[in-house]
Amino acid sequence: MSTAWMRQCRPYKLTILILLLLILLPLLAHRKLLNAELDAPPTDVHRSRPLLDAYEDFTAMRASDLKMRIEEMLRIKSTVSVELRELESRRQKLQSDISQYNQKLEELKQELLREQTELERLKISVEQAQVAQREAVQRNTPELALPRTLTPNSLPRRMKGISDGVAAACEMHNCFDHSRCSLTSGFPVYLYDPDVYNVQRSGYDIDGFLKTTIKQTLGYNAHIVRDPKQACIYLVLVGEALLEEDLLRNNRYAAQEEVAQHPHILSNSMAANNSPIDLGKLYQLPYWGGDGRNHVLLNLARRDLNSARTNPLLQQNTMRAIIVQSTFERDQFRPNYDLIVPPILGPPGGDVWQECASMVPARRKYLLTFQGELRPSQAALQPLDDFIMEHLKDMSRSSTQDQFLLQFQCVPATEQQETGSLGDWTLCGSDSSRKQLLKDSTYVLILPPLGQRVSSTLMLARLYEALRSGAVPVILGADELRLPYAETIDWRRTALLLPKARITELHFLLRAVQDSDLLLLRRQGRLIWERYLSSVQATVDTVIASMRDRLGIPPRPVPPVVAQSVFNSTFIPLKSEPPVGMDTEPEESLGPIEPPYPSPAFRRNYTILRIQSKEAWNDWMDPFFLYPQLPFDPALPSEAKFMGSHTGFRPIGKGIGGAGKEFSEALGGNYPREQFTIVILTYEREQVLMESLGRLYGLPYLHKVVVVWNSPKPPLDDLRWPDIGVPVSVVRAPRNSLNNRFLPFDVIETEAVLSVDDDAHLRHDEILFGFRVWREHRDRVVGFPGRYHAWDLSSNNLWHYNSNYSCELSMVLTGAAFIHKYYMFLYTYQLPQAIRDKVDEYMNCEDIAMNFLVSHLTRRPPVKVTSRWTFRCPGCPVSLSEDDTHFQERHKCINFFSQVFGYTPLLNTQYRADSILFKTRIPHDKQKCFKYI
Amino acid sequence: MSTAWMRQCRPYKLTILILLLLILLPLLAHRKLLNAELDAPPTDVHRSRPLLDAYEDFTAMRASDLKMRIEEMLRIKSTVSVELRELESRRQKLQSDISQYNQKLEELKQELLREQTELERLKISVEQAQVAQREAVQRNTPELALPRTLTPNSLPRRMKGISDGVAAACEMHNCFDHSRCSLTSGFPVYLYDPDVYNVQRSGYDIDGFLKTTIKQTLGYNAHIVRDPKQACIYLVLVGEALLEEDLLRNNRYAAQEEVAQHPHILSNSMAANNSPIDLGKLYQLPYWGGDGRNHVLLNLARRDLNSARTNPLLQQNTMRAIIVQSTFERDQFRPNYDLIVPPILGPPGGDVWQECASMVPARRKYLLTFQGELRPSQAALQPLDDFIMEHLKDMSRSSTQDQFLLQFQCVPATEQQETGSLGDWTLCGSDSSRKQLLKDSTYVLILPPLGQRVSSTLMLARLYEALRSGAVPVILGADELRLPYAETIDWRRTALLLPKARITELHFLLRAVQDSDLLLLRRQGRLIWERYLSSVQATVDTVIASMRDRLGIPPRPVPPVVAQSVFNSTFIPLKSEPPVGMDTEPEESLGPIEPPYPSPAFRRNYTILRIQSKEAWNDWMDPFFLYPQLPFDPALPSEAKFMGSHTGFRPIGKGIGGAGKEFSEALGGNYPREQFTIVILTYEREQVLMESLGRLYGLPYLHKVVVVWNSPKPPLDDLRWPDIGVPVSVVRAPRNSLNNRFLPFDVIETEAVLSVDDDAHLRHDEILFGFRVWREHRDRVVGFPGRYHAWDLSSNNLWHYNSNYSCELSMVLTGAAFIHKYYMFLYTYQLPQAIRDKVDEYMNCEDIAMNFLVSHLTRRPPVKVTSRWTFRCPGCPVSLSEDDTHFQERHKCINFFSQVFGYTPLLNTQYRADSILFKTRIPHDKQKCFKYI
Repeated sequence: MSTAWMRQCRPYKLTILILLLLILLPLLAHRKLLNAELDAPPTDVHRSRPLLDAYEDFTAMRASDLKMRIEEMLRIKSTVSVELRELESRRQKLQSDISQYNQKLEELKQELLREQTELERLKISVEQAQVAQREAVQRNTPELALPRTLTPNSLPRRMKGISDGVAAACEMHNCFDHSRCSLTSGFPVYLYDPDVYNVQRSGYDIDGFLKTTIKQTLGYNAHIVRDPKQACIYLVLVGEALLEEDLLRNNRYAAQEEVAQHPHILSNSMAANNSPIDLGKLYQLPYWGGDGRNHVLLNLARRDLNSARTNPLLQQNTMRAIIVQSTFERDQFRPNYDLIVPPILGPPGGDVWQECASMVPARRKYLLTFQGELRPSQAALQPLDDFIMEHLKDMSRSSTQDQFLLQFQCVPATEQQETGSLGDWTLCGSDSSRKQLLKDSTYVLILPPLGQRVSSTLMLARLYEALRSGAVPVILGADELRLPYAETIDWRRTALLLPKARITELHFLLRAVQDSDLLLLRRQGRLIWERYLSSVQATVDTVIASMRDRLGIPPRPVPPVVAQSVFNSTFIPLKSEPPVGMDTEPEESLGPIEPPYPSPAFRRNYTILRIQSKEAWNDWMDPFFLYPQLPFDPALPSEAKFMGSHTGFRPIGKGIGGAGKEFSEALGGNYPREQFTIVILTYEREQVLMESLGRLYGLPYLHKVVVVWNSPKPPLDDLRWPDIGVPVSVVRAPRNSLNNRFLPFDVIETEAVLSVDDDAHLRHDEILFGFRVWREHRDRVVGFPGRYHAWDLSSNNLWHYNSNYSCELSMVLTGAAFIHKYYMFLYTYQLPQAIRDKVDEYMNCEDIAMNFLVSHLTRRPPVKVTSRWTFRCPGCPVSLSEDDTHFQERHKCINFFSQVFGYTPLLNTQYRADSILFKTRIPHDKQKCFKYI
Repeated sequence: MSTAWMRQCRPYKLTILILLLLILLPLLAHRKLLNAELDAPPTDVHRSRPLLDAYEDFTAMRASDLKMRIEEMLRIKSTVSVELRELESRRQKLQSDISQYNQKLEELKQELLREQTELERLKISVEQAQVAQREAVQRNTPELALPRTLTPNSLPRRMKGISDGVAAACEMHNCFDHSRCSLTSGFPVYLYDPDVYNVQRSGYDIDGFLKTTIKQTLGYNAHIVRDPKQACIYLVLVGEALLEEDLLRNNRYAAQEEVAQHPHILSNSMAANNSPIDLGKLYQLPYWGGDGRNHVLLNLARRDLNSARTNPLLQQNTMRAIIVQSTFERDQFRPNYDLIVPPILGPPGGDVWQECASMVPARRKYLLTFQGELRPSQAALQPLDDFIMEHLKDMSRSSTQDQFLLQFQCVPATEQQETGSLGDWTLCGSDSSRKQLLKDSTYVLILPPLGQRVSSTLMLARLYEALRSGAVPVILGADELRLPYAETIDWRRTALLLPKARITELHFLLRAVQDSDLLLLRRQGRLIWERYLSSVQATVDTVIASMRDRLGIPPRPVPPVVAQSVFNSTFIPLKSEPPVGMDTEPEESLGPIEPPYPSPAFRRNYTILRIQSKEAWNDWMDPFFLYPQLPFDPALPSEAKFMGSHTGFRPIGKGIGGAGKEFSEALGGNYPREQFTIVILTYEREQVLMESLGRLYGLPYLHKVVVVWNSPKPPLDDLRWPDIGVPVSVVRAPRNSLNNRFLPFDVIETEAVLSVDDDAHLRHDEILFGFRVWREHRDRVVGFPGRYHAWDLSSNNLWHYNSNYSCELSMVLTGAAFIHKYYMFLYTYQLPQAIRDKVDEYMNCEDIAMNFLVSHLTRRPPVKVTSRWTFRCPGCPVSLSEDDTHFQERHKCINFFSQVFGYTPLLNTQYRADSILFKTRIPHDKQKCFKYI
């Protein structure tokens, strides 16, 4: 308040001064003249007497006297005039002198201030450096990084085979050889090439699509090794095995839909107990080691969903090998050993969002649907099942407003050619007809298979299709079943699991679920489907990750993007001196200038998936990679930094707290000290860039500047790069794309990344306050320019991008925002390709995409920081990016991205973060957090 | 900005006006006189000629002429003088008139503004009321509330008994009768009175302490019913059964310690296979129904830890009854049916924090400890176990800096009198000697029992003691074991679970755990211990909650505190008119005045523990009660409020967004509309209270004011209560206690509660902005006065309470803060009694306690809102609460509370929430969010 008031006061005071002069000058002029003429009369002793009184003296004078007097007065007048002029010129001279001196004084003061601040800053920096040094000396635990990989380097020893009965009791502790799987091994996986090692009985072969794509997608998995000596587990592809004659008929990926439409066509050619697997061949595998230790038999169903034959390993002695398939009998399944996996019904890999339905509206046409037919016949039902059927039929005929579609016979009827007892509910219609119905279903009923099966391919296919279309699965008899990946995926968060006995309460329960919970279930289901079930790649990765998780071995580190300098290795770019004085904001010391300090990386690699495995699988939805740091890493209790866990902490006032000086000297907060990286995306605007870089001189906590050079032309050799005290990495972009802004380059060594446009003009205090706020919200976009998505009822229920003044925001643009490096990995590797493609198509919207991504994962809005922000003046002429096309594209982006995500993840926020004492009246002897913000 | 500037301009303009008058008036006066005297000469045609020229005319005049002239002039002068005086008086009159008119005009303007605002407010209110009405009409789903309880109202039918073999295959779907346990039943539990229904073989009886306290603690459980016809499950207390002669010797609670010190004394009197349970008596239980359906046999170990006898039900055919105990053989345990429960080693109930060690520092003296002795002898070990022993011994002799204490023989040796093969690691020393060592242990090793046991009493006693003292359990061979409450508690979050084969990697793994993860594990362990294991009450509640969770039945609703009015039922308090004009802040319309709208309650009762059971058990640590609402309830996707899920949503500008008017008209945000309750704690300050109440007139979104009347004297009958448009409930406090501020009274019907001191003076705009910010952070304390805890290295490493100006805060005082009603339940029912006692002892610190509680559960700091806050002026004389004693107490509170919680849960925050356009320069045609904040 006080400074603002002062500035407003200045013109005010000036005005008063001028006005006073205006009053006094005419008055003085009058006085002078009057006095001059009235000085002479000896009777006139009252120099300041009023005019009227003076007149009376005249009457007493003689005329000659008067004349003489007047002449004298005229003389005096001219002398006085000359004198006045001289005085005036002297006055002017003096004034100009004074103003010169004032100016000099002001300059000197400024310089003094600058020097003092510099000194202050240096002192803090020295102090901080000393603390860091002390810490380095004290620390007795070595920095943890990725340790060296430790692999057995030998083939499995040959051991005696085991019997059927012993195999049935297999658990990890008695049937698995941990010695091949060191914690530091990185979990190496070996795949028997299915073209070389065929374990099918002659006449059978594995579905060609499966064989090819599994081989291919496994190749993309970071755990695959070619050396069997290193391997922890050995994958054997055993299914989906088909008679070769069938394969000849249907050997194309496109055949899938046909099969789904006519699910019977492949299923009548083989009896269930005539297994296509040749155990002899299995036992002969070169690394079988006598008992199949650490072997994983992949029997992945794909086309043969309606067949009774999906369990060819039943009653086959597969010894210690782990079985991965979708159908299991109760006695067959070894809990925490075998793995239940839904059938592979999706494409090899790539984007899958097109297959999904929109999540909103929460309520769809039908409350509950079911389509299926029991094969061979409904006669096999038990009394309880009969009751269920009856109850369901009654329910759909009930008089509530809720709509049901429950078909227990396929319409139109499909031919029934199944041989052998299937005892399961077959799928009706085609994939697309089912998808159509599921898109209209709020809930979909999933009935368990009959008999002693704890899971079946058909049931899992239903689950797959339900999650894909956002129909919330209601699994009846869930307590008799085993669900896929049950060790890692929390199914309660995405499906309603009910014992059969609760069929009578089903309708009541469905009505009791609120829209918000319904959408929670649906969203979780979609995430699970996308990440773990949707494609061959997803399935293969999830199977491997499940095994790895069970063994407690950390995943492979996420691959960074290796930065390539835009300069030749020999070229040394010219440097320019840092800009002196101007624009380096000398008034305030904002923090220490320290030596570079990269954020410690991979410190939690052996704990995170041990302690937080549930979160990784069900919240972060990413158990596949190890990240150097996560935005969710936990904070220590506040006294720990004073008792035993000091390292890295910089409490404010050494723990006593404070404002002003103490605050600027230390980062404080709940996390140890750190620095941030500035990433600037630039395209052919050298001069603007150099100016922006120059402004970063002396910015505390800055670790490095990474300039992403989007232009194909390298910078001119004679370009002078300002020396700003920290390294500037100029990275060649693979091609001109706005997505490059978020490439997780290896040269970015801090968790905090400040993404700025090349023409952004942020003040140092703004940047540092933003950094401090980000440290409290590491999982969110924290930055300056706020925007929002507005609903326009008039134009077909679409979102509009909006940059108007508003009191509610939902996006913070990444032209000036802090983000965690983790999100750069996700943007680059996990975001659907369609979004990055759209960004390239429009050369626009990358900031919207990042806001979508972060809000999608956190279900939180971004944080807007302070208002003094000077990015792109509002009065400036409309720049390229502000024109109408640009806006139209951004509208389209929001709507397109919402389509890809299945909903609009953006959330609203109605406040802004300011420093605690901003615009607060405080006593004069106290200091604020920042001078201006 | 613009208004502030305007106000500063007004005096400015006035000054200019006065100054202009000052200049012009003397000039005019001069002119008038000069003109008057110079009018006459006919030669003088230049009315505006300068003075000097006029003089020359005088010289040309004759004396007589001059005299005449002068006389004339004198005449004129007197006329002019009179005229001047008249003019002056007229001027004054005019001026006073003008100022009167101005004043009137100003008043009129004010009134107009007020009227306009009122009109605006009314319009908004009408509009909102219309929307609400439309919603009420459209809504076709009935409001969900707690439904009527549905119980079977019959005793179990008699069925045929089942054989041992069939019983072994029991799962919930084939052995449990769901028909007794409707979802709406509230899960009624019947306890066979152990004094009436004794199922022990003659000569045995149940430990008296157990019998008494279990009966008593179950009585406190909300699920217990006395009518067996209603019951869903039937509890039978079968253990810990002891020979009556032993009981006679040790029949006191105090005996526990003695037993722990001499664990052998009770164990040699009985052979393991001579079960103390009489199956005949069991089958004769009146509601056994032939097969023990829905019966739960509680065999809770307590004193006999080292005995082989803790599994008396082994190989006894207990039919369909569920067995709850700590020791199970592999073949005996029926997964998802039987329940593993640690022994009951704690007190009956009440505070348990005294038993625990501080969580910080993270690293303790020993890295890993173990104390135990294998009974009967180490010879029973298998080869792998031998290797483990050897490796552990090597490890403790290794040359690292880490300290180990691994004792595989008890020192001093305890006598070995155990009969029968125990095959387990007995505890060494006394409870207190073990506690001493565990407090010095960073990790503690837990070795599995030998043989086929999947859990043992001794192992679970070790787990219990480890968690109690904050030694992180390292459970070796965890993959062969079953952990207690494994269906609900996520043990990976609190223990390191390792297969035996990884013993070689143990040391490496322990070194790899960072301090933050270590403290995460330790904190989680402490929470699990406190909530689920610590006392008889905790155990009994957890057993019942586990069964309930398995059946998917919601828990009982948390009991609210029934508010008793301070007035007689017949008394009608006097009303005073609302304060007109003054202090009702008419300048700004802040929102609609709507009819009361309580927050919908119990809408998620059938979903929350179905979908979020894991969170309830492992994050919120409270699966015992159903709360009307939770601060963690999920938000809908942002388009849902425009597509199908409109109800209650009030998007800003109907979805288009905006500032000023649009913003004030609607709540916006991510959650549906709601109102808040103001809770004022008062003590004998009627007048201050009445003024505070009066200021609330016209406050939008206010649902109700609850005044907690802490004084034993009821309010005076002639006290006039201001009519503020919403109900004011004046609630009689049970006694004068600051804890009453957080009593969850039933009259509080909203989620949002604004807690204010009776003398707090918050402006309406501040309150409403705070409310909006709270709606984004429903799980945190959101309010105005910020404080922090400062570390004082000089005074024995203690915390100091600090209210200085600071840029980092960790508390927001509840003298003016929003909190979720959920936290009032927790404060009253879940916070350790010691804390509420301390609040009563000091008559202080309840606000600190609430900040501790919320930060403890959320691991987040509070949110401080805006600075224009006018609570307690800084210049005012020091009030009672600001004196030194008050501060000293607050220091002590922080340190005491930290001791109770085991750590200091407070976290730091460095920013403040302001409205988005606060102090922002915006175009003149735009509006801000609020005028002043």
